[in-house]
Amino acid sequence: MRSKKLEEIKKYIEELKAIKIELSNQEKNKFIEGIPYEITFKDGRTITREKLSKNKKDGSAIIILPVLKSGEIIINIEPRVFTKETVSIGFPAGYIEENETPLEAAKRELLEETGYQASSYILLDSFYQDEGISSAYNHCFIALNCEKISNQKLDRDEIVKNTLVYFDELLELEKLGYINSSNSKLTLLRAKQYLS
Amino acid sequence: MRSKKLEEIKKYIEELKAIKIELSNQEKNKFIEGIPYEITFKDGRTITREKLSKNKKDGSAIIILPVLKSGEIIINIEPRVFTKETVSIGFPAGYIEENETPLEAAKRELLEETGYQASSYILLDSFYQDEGISSAYNHCFIALNCEKISNQKLDRDEIVKNTLVYFDELLELEKLGYINSSNSKLTLLRAKQYLS
Repeated sequence: MRSKKLEEIKKYIEELKAIKIELSNQEKNKFIEGIPYEITFKDGRTITREKLSKNKKDGSAIIILPVLKSGEIIINIEPRVFTKETVSIGFPAGYIEENETPLEAAKRELLEETGYQASSYILLDSFYQDEGISSAYNHCFIALNCEKISNQKLDRDEIVKNTLVYFDELLELEKLGYINSSNSKLTLLRAKQYLS
Repeated sequence: MRSKKLEEIKKYIEELKAIKIELSNQEKNKFIEGIPYEITFKDGRTITREKLSKNKKDGSAIIILPVLKSGEIIINIEPRVFTKETVSIGFPAGYIEENETPLEAAKRELLEETGYQASSYILLDSFYQDEGISSAYNHCFIALNCEKISNQKLDRDEIVKNTLVYFDELLELEKLGYINSSNSKLTLLRAKQYLS
C-alpha cells in the first residue's frame, strides 16, 4: 500500500487513542440493559433469557462500504474505546432509527459520517450481531459512485476521521490487523465477492 | 442438497421453536449489564460509554467448524429465541471461561456440544463481536479429523441438536437463509477460503 497513506492512517490512530479509561460513577442514561424473558418450548420446557437492549431498542445497524467513481473507498478511523488499541478502522455505520428502513439509515449515516452521497446501494448481506442475546439484525451495503456534497455532521461526542484507500489497500489493512470487527470483516468479504 | 437431510434439519427446527416468549418478572441473576466508563482523549475531550458485560465477563467466545475424516461437518441446530425464527443453524460455540485459552475453550465446547474430539485445530480469524460497546474478542477455528468419543454434555437449559452435512450443503444452507449470525457467517467464509 502507499506508504504515505499508511502514515496518514497511523497518524489518525495516534491522535484518536484514549489516554484514560476509568469506571464512571454516573449511572444516568442506561444505554445497555438486559431485559429478562421467559420462553416456553413445544415440549413444555421453560427457560429464562435476557435480551440486550441498546437505548431501549434492539440495536439493529447498517454498515456501508462506499466506493467513489475513482475506485477509492471511504474508511472510518474512530475510537473504539473497549478494544485493545482503543481505535479501529472500519466503515461508515450506525443504528437504524425508528421508522427508518435499512436503506434510509444507510443514506443518512453515509451523509452524516462522510458528507458523501451515493448513486445506488446494493445490499450485500444481513446478519444477527449477537444471536444468543440480541435481536439486532444488521445489513451491509456497498454504495456506488459516491460524491462529496457536504461536510460531516457528527453528534457531539462522535469522533470520526475519513480517508480514501483503494480496494487492495483495504484488503491489506485487514491483513495487517487494522480492521477487527465482525461487522467490518463481513462487509469487506461480501464486497470482495461482489466486486470480483 | 440431500432432500432427506434438509427434511431432518427442518424437523429439528420445528421441534425447537419457541411457542411463547414473554417478559419475565424475575430480575435475579443479571446476566447482561452496561458498565459506565469515562474516557479521556489526547485533546482533552472526555466522553462516557457503557461497556457490555455478560455474566461479569467481557463475553469473548470461540466458534468451531468441525470436519470429520469423511468430509462431513457437524452443525448445531439450537434455539435462538430472540431471532425471527427462534431457531438457528450454526456451529459449536461458546464463551471462553476464566483461565482458559481460546484453544482450550474450543476443545471443551466441541466435546460438550457434540461429543467429538479433533486431531488438530487451525485458527481461521479473530474479531470483535460488537466493537462499539464491548471488549468481546472472538476466535473461529476449523477442527480437523473429528471423531466421536462421548455423548453431548449440555448445561441444564441448553438444547443443541447436531447433524452432519457436506461443505457444499453447508454453503447451500447459508444461501437458503438458515445460517444468520455474524459469527457463523464469518467462520463459514473463512473456512471456505481455507479449504479452497
